[in-house]
Amino acid sequence: VVIFVRVDLNCDMGESFGAYRIGADEQILEYVTSANIACGFHAGDPSTMRRTVRMALEKQVAVGAHPGYPDLLGFGRRFLDATPEEVYDMTVYQIGALAAFVKAEGGKLHHVKPHGALYNTAARDPKIAEAIAEAVYRVDPDLILFGLSGSALVEAGRRIGLRVANEVFADRTYQADGSLTPRSVAGALITDVDVAVEQVLSIVREGRVRTLQGTYVDIAADTVCIHGDGPNAVGFARRLRERLRLAGVAVSAL
Amino acid sequence: VVIFVRVDLNCDMGESFGAYRIGADEQILEYVTSANIACGFHAGDPSTMRRTVRMALEKQVAVGAHPGYPDLLGFGRRFLDATPEEVYDMTVYQIGALAAFVKAEGGKLHHVKPHGALYNTAARDPKIAEAIAEAVYRVDPDLILFGLSGSALVEAGRRIGLRVANEVFADRTYQADGSLTPRSVAGALITDVDVAVEQVLSIVREGRVRTLQGTYVDIAADTVCIHGDGPNAVGFARRLRERLRLAGVAVSAL
Amino acid sequence: VVIFVRVDLNCDMGESFGAYRIGADEQILEYVTSANIACGFHAGDPSTMRRTVRMALEKQVAVGAHPGYPDLLGFGRRFLDATPEEVYDMTVYQIGALAAFVKAEGGKLHHVKPHGALYNTAARDPKIAEAIAEAVYRVDPDLILFGLSGSALVEAGRRIGLRVANEVFADRTYQADGSLTPRSVAGALITDVDVAVEQVLSIVREGRVRTLQGTYVDIAADTVCIHGDGPNAVGFARRLRERLRLAGVAVSAL
Amino acid sequence: VVIFVRVDLNCDMGESFGAYRIGADEQILEYVTSANIACGFHAGDPSTMRRTVRMALEKQVAVGAHPGYPDLLGFGRRFLDATPEEVYDMTVYQIGALAAFVKAEGGKLHHVKPHGALYNTAARDPKIAEAIAEAVYRVDPDLILFGLSGSALVEAGRRIGLRVANEVFADRTYQADGSLTPRSVAGALITDVDVAVEQVLSIVREGRVRTLQGTYVDIAADTVCIHGDGPNAVGFARRLRERLRLAGVAVSAL
Repeated sequence: VVIFVRVDLNCDMGESFGAYRIGADEQILEYVTSANIACGFHAGDPSTMRRTVRMALEKQVAVGAHPGYPDLLGFGRRFLDATPEEVYDMTVYQIGALAAFVKAEGGKLHHVKPHGALYNTAARDPKIAEAIAEAVYRVDPDLILFGLSGSALVEAGRRIGLRVANEVFADRTYQADGSLTPRSVAGALITDVDVAVEQVLSIVREGRVRTLQGTYVDIAADTVCIHGDGPNAVGFARRLRERLRLAGVAVSAL
Repeated sequence: VVIFVRVDLNCDMGESFGAYRIGADEQILEYVTSANIACGFHAGDPSTMRRTVRMALEKQVAVGAHPGYPDLLGFGRRFLDATPEEVYDMTVYQIGALAAFVKAEGGKLHHVKPHGALYNTAARDPKIAEAIAEAVYRVDPDLILFGLSGSALVEAGRRIGLRVANEVFADRTYQADGSLTPRSVAGALITDVDVAVEQVLSIVREGRVRTLQGTYVDIAADTVCIHGDGPNAVGFARRLRERLRLAGVAVSAL
Repeated sequence: VVIFVRVDLNCDMGESFGAYRIGADEQILEYVTSANIACGFHAGDPSTMRRTVRMALEKQVAVGAHPGYPDLLGFGRRFLDATPEEVYDMTVYQIGALAAFVKAEGGKLHHVKPHGALYNTAARDPKIAEAIAEAVYRVDPDLILFGLSGSALVEAGRRIGLRVANEVFADRTYQADGSLTPRSVAGALITDVDVAVEQVLSIVREGRVRTLQGTYVDIAADTVCIHGDGPNAVGFARRLRERLRLAGVAVSAL
Repeated sequence: VVIFVRVDLNCDMGESFGAYRIGADEQILEYVTSANIACGFHAGDPSTMRRTVRMALEKQVAVGAHPGYPDLLGFGRRFLDATPEEVYDMTVYQIGALAAFVKAEGGKLHHVKPHGALYNTAARDPKIAEAIAEAVYRVDPDLILFGLSGSALVEAGRRIGLRVANEVFADRTYQADGSLTPRSVAGALITDVDVAVEQVLSIVREGRVRTLQGTYVDIAADTVCIHGDGPNAVGFARRLRERLRLAGVAVSAL
């Protein structure tokens, strides 16, 4: 019998850039407990960072850095063959930039979650994972490292001595080996909000997920990723939060 | 009678970018006591920042952030009509990025000196000066703010409660009002190393400088700027350091 | 008695960037006769340029290059103190990039209109105006140069031997000297669609505009700028086009 | 018996950026017959492009566009996972930008050679090769496409109807299958100038190269790549040109 279940809800945000707007950050902040704020490489800019940090702190949402590849044009979604040393350097840089805004606003940086292609590379490439874990650790060993549940990144973080958070996705299906179904495969995305909510409940309460193949696979879940930029993003966040409450699942930052 | 005179020698560095190299940083670090390290906006990149911070710390040179306008193509030398709020934001960002490398290398960020057109704008525009001073103060009130001697930037720093450093130049001539001779005016630059060294000695020991017009004007000097990228940069730095030693002027970071 | 009146309607477009969307380009293209397409410096990117050029050509709208300062973060709206030579170079570059897409799609580049702060600088600074005019002329002397009606840019274009287009604005008020009311002044913007339409009709049919002060000033109008990114942009474009038709004003590219 | 042998010598240039200098372009232009000029994505900027185009045309060297990935920090040497469509778009853009400078200076663009990681990707990935070939063809079907000898890029160019140039390298060793020895393998680079010169002569006169393994492999050579940025770049270019002359090999653009 599950006595007490707790989970964190996180969302990528601060991904606007200059005159360009992406994401319903202000509304999404009502429903999540952790905000991963872009740091100016794949998205975001200094002014957007300040505003987003300020909003998140006001709403008492835990603030994390969301570093990505230096590819604004590709929104950080394209793999760039950077060396582990280059990844270490770009991660230190981006964490520091975001941390300064948090400090200037009177808060404290809470976690780090890589973005997009950097996240995916770090999930499977141990050297890139180590580079990121080392960057986080050397900037501040108290930071929590978010990574794909069970991935090389989470392992690298744990090994270096960081607190880590296994991340799961509400709107992505899983494969029998616990990996995410690649976006190129049919059925990769869950578009039905109810199905997505049920997947989260199953993962959070039972520690397992029904795979695309219909089997079940164990999966650790410290934090659930909510997307903030779809047409139903706010509605989904509200619904998920409500369902978790009804199900007796506590929602709070790590 | 001057009993004891002390001054800081600073140099802009870390201004390489990727495959592009500028400045004889390693050699210059032998002679200066403060290093102003570019933060990736007008020059510098994450890997260059790490390497430069590491070198400076190894040589026990005080490390400062050297934020500039986001204009790599113009090397931060072109005025950009950014608002005070935008300047505040870009300054927080750049200080934070550099500070993270300093922290990761086990050091502590010591000072901030704006670069190029941002430095010049902050010297004369009180709103831009305040924006920078506030950024520095909010990121870390222990940082020392470097600005043109007697400028609006130094004044803004002092007003907000920061320690400030009045900066003078070895290779630039001064006007009767204490301002630098604009580069467009004949005689703006001092190319004779001996003349430059004597100007520094006069400023440091007597607190005044002989202007281009031949008169004298009082000038405060906490730190002297050495340029690191000319053909004689290293030779000049060595010579100035030696002459200061012979003249009994102590050289150390603030 | 006015026997025949003709005017061009132009709109800035192609100002999206990567994942970021700005402007209702496809719909606006139904109502305008000239499209000024961003070239990747202040906005736009290669893929957006291709798509926008293709759409404009399909709808038989005249395609122009819309070069700006290299300031994506500021959307080209911030003055950058670039030299005339730098402005010449950035203009040649951007025209060429856009022209290649037009050629690849089987069309021919028709005109050039600078963007934002570059447009404003060129309107009042003869050296910057000449630099742009020379860039346009040297890339292709058949291109038409669009500039603020009566400005230094139009004059520079005419002097070098280019065909020029005097541009007027539907939603901006004018001063007694024929200049636009600065945005910082109350009454600078016309928000009432009917008032904006009437201003265009007055300018186009009578060659004069009622100033903010209530006087009238003569103004030449070869092309009217329609904004494509406001909430009512499409509605306004449709209404203006319809009113011009009813008033017997022919609308066509130059 | 070889009756008449002709080859082109090409060099990448215009790779400076703002205040940053790379390459001895002016001197190298004395010895090569084709110049591949960077277009602002991996290196180069509008002003550098104008200057380099002007110099090359003055010295009657054939001017080519040298497009790369949008990665100034990595100098275009890092693979970026861009789609074929994105590669098509970035290639059209860069060719157009360079072509405009050539036109403004009264010349005509002659060829296109992709840079660094884009060159390597195009050599082995048929879809990327096709994207580049199509971009070149649609901008101007008279352009000559340079690619690694025998590669997918040369094949894609030929298939679409372009004239192509098989490129060989003076200072890289070859494998038994005709591919370049990867830089990570010992013996990949030829540092002895005499050995490099002899390799070129062997390739140009006999149509074959001695591989790193000691065997011989046939190789087509329309153009030889000279590097312009090493310490001995100018000396090597001069020596190679002289040796080719002595050997009766005509050197001229295609």
